[in-house]
Amino acid sequence: MTEGASHRRSGGRANRQSTRKSATTAREAYLTRLLKPVDLVTDEGLEILEHNAETILEEIGVDIRDYPSAIARFKEVGASVDGNRVRFPRGLCRSIVQATAPREYIQHARNPLNNVKIGGDATVFAPNYGSPFVHDLDNGRRYATIADFQNFVKLSYMSPYLHHSGGTVCEPVDIPVSKRHLDMVYSHIKYSDKGFMGSVTAGERAQDSVDMARIAFGGDLQDRTVMTSLINASSPLAWDATMLASAEVYASNNQATIITPFILAGAMAPTTSAGVCAQTLAESLVGMAFTQLVRPGAPVIFGSFASSMSMLTGAPTFGTPEPALVLYTMASLARRLGVPFRSGGSLTASKLPDAQAAYESAGTLIPTIMAGTNFVLHSAGWLEGGLAIGYEKFVLDCDQLGMMMTFGKGLDLTENGQAMSALRENTSLSHFLGTEHTLANFETAFYRSDTADNNSYEQWLEDGSLDAAQRANKMWKSRLAEYELPQLDEAIDAELQEYMAKRKLDLPDAFA
Amino acid sequence: MTEGASHRRSGGRANRQSTRKSATTAREAYLTRLLKPVDLVTDEGLEILEHNAETILEEIGVDIRDYPSAIARFKEVGASVDGNRVRFPRGLCRSIVQATAPREYIQHARNPLNNVKIGGDATVFAPNYGSPFVHDLDNGRRYATIADFQNFVKLSYMSPYLHHSGGTVCEPVDIPVSKRHLDMVYSHIKYSDKGFMGSVTAGERAQDSVDMARIAFGGDLQDRTVMTSLINASSPLAWDATMLASAEVYASNNQATIITPFILAGAMAPTTSAGVCAQTLAESLVGMAFTQLVRPGAPVIFGSFASSMSMLTGAPTFGTPEPALVLYTMASLARRLGVPFRSGGSLTASKLPDAQAAYESAGTLIPTIMAGTNFVLHSAGWLEGGLAIGYEKFVLDCDQLGMMMTFGKGLDLTENGQAMSALRENTSLSHFLGTEHTLANFETAFYRSDTADNNSYEQWLEDGSLDAAQRANKMWKSRLAEYELPQLDEAIDAELQEYMAKRKLDLPDAFA
Repeated sequence: MTEGASHRRSGGRANRQSTRKSATTAREAYLTRLLKPVDLVTDEGLEILEHNAETILEEIGVDIRDYPSAIARFKEVGASVDGNRVRFPRGLCRSIVQATAPREYIQHARNPLNNVKIGGDATVFAPNYGSPFVHDLDNGRRYATIADFQNFVKLSYMSPYLHHSGGTVCEPVDIPVSKRHLDMVYSHIKYSDKGFMGSVTAGERAQDSVDMARIAFGGDLQDRTVMTSLINASSPLAWDATMLASAEVYASNNQATIITPFILAGAMAPTTSAGVCAQTLAESLVGMAFTQLVRPGAPVIFGSFASSMSMLTGAPTFGTPEPALVLYTMASLARRLGVPFRSGGSLTASKLPDAQAAYESAGTLIPTIMAGTNFVLHSAGWLEGGLAIGYEKFVLDCDQLGMMMTFGKGLDLTENGQAMSALRENTSLSHFLGTEHTLANFETAFYRSDTADNNSYEQWLEDGSLDAAQRANKMWKSRLAEYELPQLDEAIDAELQEYMAKRKLDLPDAFA
Repeated sequence: MTEGASHRRSGGRANRQSTRKSATTAREAYLTRLLKPVDLVTDEGLEILEHNAETILEEIGVDIRDYPSAIARFKEVGASVDGNRVRFPRGLCRSIVQATAPREYIQHARNPLNNVKIGGDATVFAPNYGSPFVHDLDNGRRYATIADFQNFVKLSYMSPYLHHSGGTVCEPVDIPVSKRHLDMVYSHIKYSDKGFMGSVTAGERAQDSVDMARIAFGGDLQDRTVMTSLINASSPLAWDATMLASAEVYASNNQATIITPFILAGAMAPTTSAGVCAQTLAESLVGMAFTQLVRPGAPVIFGSFASSMSMLTGAPTFGTPEPALVLYTMASLARRLGVPFRSGGSLTASKLPDAQAAYESAGTLIPTIMAGTNFVLHSAGWLEGGLAIGYEKFVLDCDQLGMMMTFGKGLDLTENGQAMSALRENTSLSHFLGTEHTLANFETAFYRSDTADNNSYEQWLEDGSLDAAQRANKMWKSRLAEYELPQLDEAIDAELQEYMAKRKLDLPDAFA
């Protein structure tokens, strides 16, 4: 048994989960970074990209598809309209965003201890989003169900390193498309007390999400943001009615949206990273401006999702150098704009939790932190280019998130951190294990991984020669076995169930 | 078959290896970083650490064990001596280093195309060092032999992303300790034409290394550095005779040394990272000053190797947050001192090339690059805390080094990089696959991994459902099958063999 696994056993209830990290470190609701974000591109370079984005908006414009009211909103503030194509005077969208979009906001959770700050020096980790498949070592890959969905909500709730319950952690394909948003929102409320995301697959489903959140949080939401939902562009340079309608519902209710161009470079944007950056900025500016026209001051996150591509097969590729460069650059551009930034995660094209999965995930997650990203979707579980969420991958990724929680605090230069007392005590120049300083720091020294095997080769053989995925397989099962429901007022629960039942009667059983 | 693997098949000779990266990118002898190194600690924080290092040298001092001539050298320049304990006036070691140690130097290789710059904006990747065991998927873990050693020299020679042949890539335990340095140096010269490292396990073995390099390079070496060798401190705060004697041989012959405190934090240094940093700086300053007293101007690298520790078992741990923080900090301290910096690599405690190995390796390698490290030992192959080198791990790591070669170039902001022509061409807002810009950039767009499987799940199933390690298993075998010897003058080869034969007659068959 590894030290991590034996350590892990001490925890049962979710409010004791912090013992999984280290015996004495209290759980943080989100990461407050003490490290300064890294800007890889100079101010001059960033100005070029901002200039190019404005040129795109002015000369090429964006298509607003099947949503005339959005076109009308833009026309009213000075955009020129030619059919669906909307072109923007230089700086228009930027000035709209900068006039009213908040630099940071609080997303309230059912449990106030899980309220998260989004923006500034805060980083919030949310799990995987949108996968139709699940993967585990026992059964391989199969379609996801609502049971899987609830499992991942539970695992996210139990992880001290996930700060948010996420949204469509996987697609519960056993429930009709027209109805599953109800079960998803309900599951987040029922099985977790962390913040969550609402539905965006139709305006009315966004409205259902808002209505259910009103029940869960008790009353009007105009004074507090309790959902942060994902609004994707239809790159290149287009926004469709579904996403804009959902964004409109959320913004008008003071709920947050993540305005994200989702770009496979080479197909939905130019092959070169600077081209991807300028296009992403242009697309996102339009979406963010839209939310501010709907409701000035509605919380909005600048999102960027960029993957590279195999030029031989057209397949998306992850954890490669180019998306990392895009990520750093977009984070810098978001800081200059003055809004929270979403990107990154633990991305991979691998089909299973192997070395490829880990290299690619780290190749995304580490830049995510270094760049000072504020909201990190897909922090845990992502496999196969997002087509699947993996149980073992989820456990392994959470451990990496824990490492980032420690790394983000930077070098401790307090007197205890400097440790001169330890050096002065050890005048015989023997080992430091017995120094007072070491004993005083024993409990908090070093991040303790719960998935790594650091034992001797002989001990590892004796423990069954397991690889990391095999150890993680045991861990997610024991965690689910230990899960306990968070408190939920019975009247609220009943009202939510009643709302769902009524809506399900109204809605057709559509599966697509 | 993955795109990478089929692509890889085009190469046979080492001088065609660059095709493995991308069809049109020429191989670089080393990485010239265009990204600015990241300083995670403020100048004020770095000054505290420098102050603490001087306090350590002044108050506590270091032990110089069994090497009176080194003590005499330090006494002569103003150190105070008490038995083995040597204490240094504040700033003495620093001023000695800064007076004469070069900021950067060229290590010459047998093939001048493989000369590498060490220091400044250059990063040089060298393979694993020092493992008594080897690991592969077919045979598991076993003791290394000279055949393994030669295999890894060949694989390093063939990788476009390894810039250096390394030193003790593994311990050829089938050859007596007293003689194996001869076979190792010979193998580097014979099976590769990249730069290499000499022996440091005894002064006379260092001298053998110098003598063999003289034969290989033809004559005196005072005008050129052809070896960079690894000199480790006996932390905490001690230097032993073996390492100092080897350092003396190399420095006096104008050959480079890497002066490296090898620290398991908590045991050989305080548990806290800032304590590790101050101690590392103190130890390294003494070793570097020693080389400058031996021969002012001898190339010397400031090395730092720091691992964290399991506080429950005492086992070393890798890829964790604390060593990454130490790495960034030491790189900043080396820049302030003005000498090249060595640290990092692809480190892991895992016994096999699994997700743990990859996460931990990336958790070391990415900081290595971000911090602007100049010389990277253990770039490829490291497993099990350095006890083993893995064939599959080696192949997987090399792919990551390739990614770093691309990442280190930063964002391309040329006119082609900005890609405004692509955006202007695509006025219908369809995909970019057919634009002139995409076609013009087809060959160079995106780093092409040769180990990742980015295919569809169905294609991956059809290809045998292999994980990354299983794909790498095929790759190292086919690479070794394709290996061809680099040119070596027959007279030089004969002279080297004669030297070895003569020395082996002189030396006893010691195995420890």
